[in-house]
Amino acid sequence: MNEFEVIERYFRRPPRNGDVRIGIGDDGAVVAPAAGMEYVLTVDMLVEGRHFAAGADPRQLGHKTLAVNLSDLAAMGALPRFVLLAGALPVAEPDWLQAFMRGFDALAAQYDVELIGGDTTRGPRTFCVTAIGELPAGTAITRGGANPGDTIFVSGRLGDAALALAVAGRRVEVDPMLLPALQRRLDAPEPRVALGVALRGVASSALDVSDGLTGDLRHILDASRVGATIDLAAIPCSDALRALARGPQRPLALACLLAGGDDYELCFTATPAMRERVDALAHALSVPLTPIGAITAEPGLAIRDEHGAPMASLPHAFDHFA
Amino acid sequence: MNEFEVIERYFRRPPRNGDVRIGIGDDGAVVAPAAGMEYVLTVDMLVEGRHFAAGADPRQLGHKTLAVNLSDLAAMGALPRFVLLAGALPVAEPDWLQAFMRGFDALAAQYDVELIGGDTTRGPRTFCVTAIGELPAGTAITRGGANPGDTIFVSGRLGDAALALAVAGRRVEVDPMLLPALQRRLDAPEPRVALGVALRGVASSALDVSDGLTGDLRHILDASRVGATIDLAAIPCSDALRALARGPQRPLALACLLAGGDDYELCFTATPAMRERVDALAHALSVPLTPIGAITAEPGLAIRDEHGAPMASLPHAFDHFA
Repeated sequence: MNEFEVIERYFRRPPRNGDVRIGIGDDGAVVAPAAGMEYVLTVDMLVEGRHFAAGADPRQLGHKTLAVNLSDLAAMGALPRFVLLAGALPVAEPDWLQAFMRGFDALAAQYDVELIGGDTTRGPRTFCVTAIGELPAGTAITRGGANPGDTIFVSGRLGDAALALAVAGRRVEVDPMLLPALQRRLDAPEPRVALGVALRGVASSALDVSDGLTGDLRHILDASRVGATIDLAAIPCSDALRALARGPQRPLALACLLAGGDDYELCFTATPAMRERVDALAHALSVPLTPIGAITAEPGLAIRDEHGAPMASLPHAFDHFA
Repeated sequence: MNEFEVIERYFRRPPRNGDVRIGIGDDGAVVAPAAGMEYVLTVDMLVEGRHFAAGADPRQLGHKTLAVNLSDLAAMGALPRFVLLAGALPVAEPDWLQAFMRGFDALAAQYDVELIGGDTTRGPRTFCVTAIGELPAGTAITRGGANPGDTIFVSGRLGDAALALAVAGRRVEVDPMLLPALQRRLDAPEPRVALGVALRGVASSALDVSDGLTGDLRHILDASRVGATIDLAAIPCSDALRALARGPQRPLALACLLAGGDDYELCFTATPAMRERVDALAHALSVPLTPIGAITAEPGLAIRDEHGAPMASLPHAFDHFA
């Protein structure tokens, strides 16, 4: 199977969206937003051995490869529309690729995201997704809009994906009954697409928690030129992680919770006046939206432990060049 | 240097274009075309050992990484506007990365292309560029518009990049005086940006010759449901390649010319009535635009040799999964 057969067989799709003028199969795709709309663009590269294991399930990997990009769009408040997929594979593996695209396509179909272009080549297994979302002009939720007094929220629960990774690396043990749920958080994250769109006009700032809460929250603090205080006990997490944090594995549990990465939840800020709207959103979307602290005028990130005492040292965020 | 320092130091740029609402530094970039304009999107992945050698000059590589994408935009008739750059590097190499970005930035500045987003990670050296161009709605030049009777043109000269690669692989020798020019074609291709834009309303179809003339031309024939006859003697090439084609290295010379790849010239079709406009463009832009054959109603690609006889077998185009 050559490159063009690969494209024809696995990537070519009938155009679905009216604003795709030209889709897959030319030198470029042609799109235009409706009047008054803007595009949001984001790119992520996933490398075997770094972002996924060599033996990773291809279908889950196809899902995750798209999910991490939709998560970035959600963090901007954008509705996902199009995606370009570039991939390097060591050899043409029809079964593997078919399974990968099944996972990719299922998530794309769920959100009506159209694959409009791509590139395939031979090389160490690597995927690069460019996702394009849409929103009304001027409504993008940036990292720079947080103000002192704003409440800090996170969606869902943090730390489970990192805990699954720690279990896989035999650094910790958990009740085997709890493992499938943890593993699902690592392998098949659900991007908070509906939440991101709903946060337009509600959140003052937002980002997705992909590299760990404290490291990511610092990006909001830097961009907004503010500080924050958060309460460790308020950060939503699984019972498994909460139990670990009370025992001898506390350092590992805190690292998962505060600096674990791969959560793909949204962290956002909103004025106290927005509290009711945030609670209504949580209810309407069936997504826990938990207040974990507040934005402060003084720079820096302070974390209070379960007893209200400031934590002296914080685990480090995941850093791709560390 | 961590990932964020890398981004701050090498990738962050002041916004240059008015239609970039949000550039590098958030979860996504925000852009919107002017009224009546459309965006063209294209993505290319370059892998070490496949698209460039392990010891490749980083500055030239930075140039080429962007150039191959601008070439795709040119083939659609789009003016390049923005670019997203994702890259995997085995280790953080400040000097290497600085040189790479110098080459990348120099070409970007030449065409006023703005870097609006990206991703960096550790991994086997791989780059993935998503380029976004702009054109008036409905003016994109596709592969599907060629009609019987149209003349087939190519810009510049073909085969020199492939010849440089053959020389480097010691499969052939050429006059050492000629080598630097050949090598430049391989290492530092110049995308035909101005030509692509000027071909709007002139060309009936177009693509860029990146995988070899015959293979790429077949994409036009397939998309347009037509055939073509081209004249070997008419295909523009260097004196070095022309001389080789007359000697015992003729098979290699023809493979370079017809199926060599890495040319990044434009191949386009136009009605005979457009001939004067094409010639005027060649003059205005100082780019040779050479007629090499004609589109036919019968499907298939026929090549006539120097004596007007049909060539029985054709060299194969470069295929990334071959």
